Amino acid sequence: MILLPDDFVVTPWEVSGDIDYDRLIERFGTQKIDDELVARLVKHTGEMHTMLRRGIFYSHRDLNLILDDHEKGRGFVMYTGRGPSGHTHLGHLMPWIFTKYLQDRFGVELYFQLTDDEKFLFLPELSLEDTKNFAYENALDIIALGFDKDKTRIFLDTEYAHQMYNIALKVAKKVTFSTAKAVFGFDNSNNIGSIWFTSMQAATAFLPSVLKGENIRCVIPCAIDQDPHFRVARDIAEGIGFYKPALLHCKMLPSLAGSDKMSASLPSTSIFTVDSAGDIKKKIGNAFTGGAVSVDEQRKNGGNPDICSVYQYFYYIFEEDDAKLDDRWAKCRSGEILCGECKGDLTARVTGFVAKHQEKREKARDVVEEFMLRDCQGGDD
Amino acid sequence: MILLPDDFVVTPWEVSGDIDYDRLIERFGTQKIDDELVARLVKHTGEMHTMLRRGIFYSHRDLNLILDDHEKGRGFVMYTGRGPSGHTHLGHLMPWIFTKYLQDRFGVELYFQLTDDEKFLFLPELSLEDTKNFAYENALDIIALGFDKDKTRIFLDTEYAHQMYNIALKVAKKVTFSTAKAVFGFDNSNNIGSIWFTSMQAATAFLPSVLKGENIRCVIPCAIDQDPHFRVARDIAEGIGFYKPALLHCKMLPSLAGSDKMSASLPSTSIFTVDSAGDIKKKIGNAFTGGAVSVDEQRKNGGNPDICSVYQYFYYIFEEDDAKLDDRWAKCRSGEILCGECKGDLTARVTGFVAKHQEKREKARDVVEEFMLRDCQGGDD
Repeated sequence: MILLPDDFVVTPWEVSGDIDYDRLIERFGTQKIDDELVARLVKHTGEMHTMLRRGIFYSHRDLNLILDDHEKGRGFVMYTGRGPSGHTHLGHLMPWIFTKYLQDRFGVELYFQLTDDEKFLFLPELSLEDTKNFAYENALDIIALGFDKDKTRIFLDTEYAHQMYNIALKVAKKVTFSTAKAVFGFDNSNNIGSIWFTSMQAATAFLPSVLKGENIRCVIPCAIDQDPHFRVARDIAEGIGFYKPALLHCKMLPSLAGSDKMSASLPSTSIFTVDSAGDIKKKIGNAFTGGAVSVDEQRKNGGNPDICSVYQYFYYIFEEDDAKLDDRWAKCRSGEILCGECKGDLTARVTGFVAKHQEKREKARDVVEEFMLRDCQGGDD
Repeated sequence: MILLPDDFVVTPWEVSGDIDYDRLIERFGTQKIDDELVARLVKHTGEMHTMLRRGIFYSHRDLNLILDDHEKGRGFVMYTGRGPSGHTHLGHLMPWIFTKYLQDRFGVELYFQLTDDEKFLFLPELSLEDTKNFAYENALDIIALGFDKDKTRIFLDTEYAHQMYNIALKVAKKVTFSTAKAVFGFDNSNNIGSIWFTSMQAATAFLPSVLKGENIRCVIPCAIDQDPHFRVARDIAEGIGFYKPALLHCKMLPSLAGSDKMSASLPSTSIFTVDSAGDIKKKIGNAFTGGAVSVDEQRKNGGNPDICSVYQYFYYIFEEDDAKLDDRWAKCRSGEILCGECKGDLTARVTGFVAKHQEKREKARDVVEEFMLRDCQGGDD
């Protein structure tokens, strides 16, 4: 695909160009989370989350129906997921942190799908053993965030394949290759597993209804690049007897190279939860900023925080205080602070966060089994 | 697809036209079972089976390698299957009867796959519950034939999905849509489940090696219309660490309408194992024969057994005695016997066979569980 200068690509498997998130709402046909909906959400949560206030979670489908069901006492469930192609980075944690906030405030169940089948099918270099191992590593990060053990079910597609396959078949029967081509850009060179896969991703939206034996609405907090899967799921949901899944979309944490999303495939521009303090310092030290060509120049004309990846990290995760964030922006703009100072501040914040996370991550090893959904293994042999 | 006058179509989902089985060997690139191979097989079985002698089982892939492994004491396993789109008819029983002969003589394990997922995906009118119910009905027929309970494992894809999905993923990763299109004639209107499905059919060839933890060769006795699935399986087998499956292909029992294969979708031209004596009498009574326009004409010029479906039934299953079969052919040709007599004889044979089969089929209900392979159901909820 050839990109025009201001163009961008966002699919579940490719994010490139400078993303215009408002245009993405139009392209995908989603709804903006407007002030009224934010107010309705906050009425229930009792607290405005930074990611809502800053418009990081900014788009949705049918969130109003979820709140209707909540208000009528019918309840709802949540579903999110992760494609275990490598270790977890901070970009992955962002929507999970918001998901945990929703779970805490609404007290609802969360189904967490680890698509080890997907990453095996889409990445030539990974074996099923690789993706399964990464799935368990990722599960430690999920648990470390503090999700409620009694209300959170994590599963690997390959370990919960019996349950998932039976639901996915009903999805797959309703989705033509034509649709899959149009939505995901597949062609003849794609393998037949990757073409099938969206059925497994859609199936989780219906899993809670299957397990409960009655329909319950499901909302999926996720980065907006995953929306195409759920557009397919929504199209076929009612035809197979379920509610259309609702969605809550967030923007994607930029990479330290300054654009696109943080990507597990470019390790030097992403910060992973398993990184050492030295790794973090080095990566942030090499981050793309809005600094000028020289210290003198920057003292005189200021830097540009709007294109600075370090500033973005404060904005997205590491500075919840709006006043302090604005202050940093203004001081950069005026040349009062230089890039080294911001990098130092961010390194301290990230290192502190990751160190604490790693402690909780180690403790998660003891309880991981309590979170996992599995079929029994391997039949009667 | 437009057929030339002498043309025919044979795919796993469509059989039409007058099949030229020798040309099919060329088209599919299989090998004829020649006299030498028949002799080698019979050396081990100690008995020439009618279906070998008459060339009903007539084509193969790598049967010699199976016999090599048998002779070297390495053993082999068998795999066959059934797409449970309806009740079992006599055309289905034909390869199973031969498969049982092989199991009895070689004492080997048989894995019997019931592809309830396939029939659900390919047939708009069938639900998963429908195909699952038919699978259990079909299993009764399999067991009624007398397969060895200790060496025969029957499973439904949806009930053994955990085990099967994990193997099928490895197949699917190696098969492009391009290949699936070329082999099966798929286009954009096929659903993504049907495109995926061949992975599940291929997976059974590798299942015994997975269960045993070491590679063992597998031979698949089946009607030749199923060969395309296994061409795909053979192409990718070694790339994922298994032997290429071997095949033993049979011709297809014609329908009572005189051409094509007996089809479950045209019930009036097929005899089902659940048919009553009345059904059988009526269906055979209406069968297409090689009779002349009038009795006088037929007495004078004879009939044509070569195009007669009733004769074909004697040939394929219901007259094992070559001399008696030849006698019937000659007497038809000469006008000595008329269609009514042959229909009466066949009705008696089929009714007798089906009545006995139905008795064994009822007894099979008591032991069906002992044959079934299953994942545990539904995870930990």
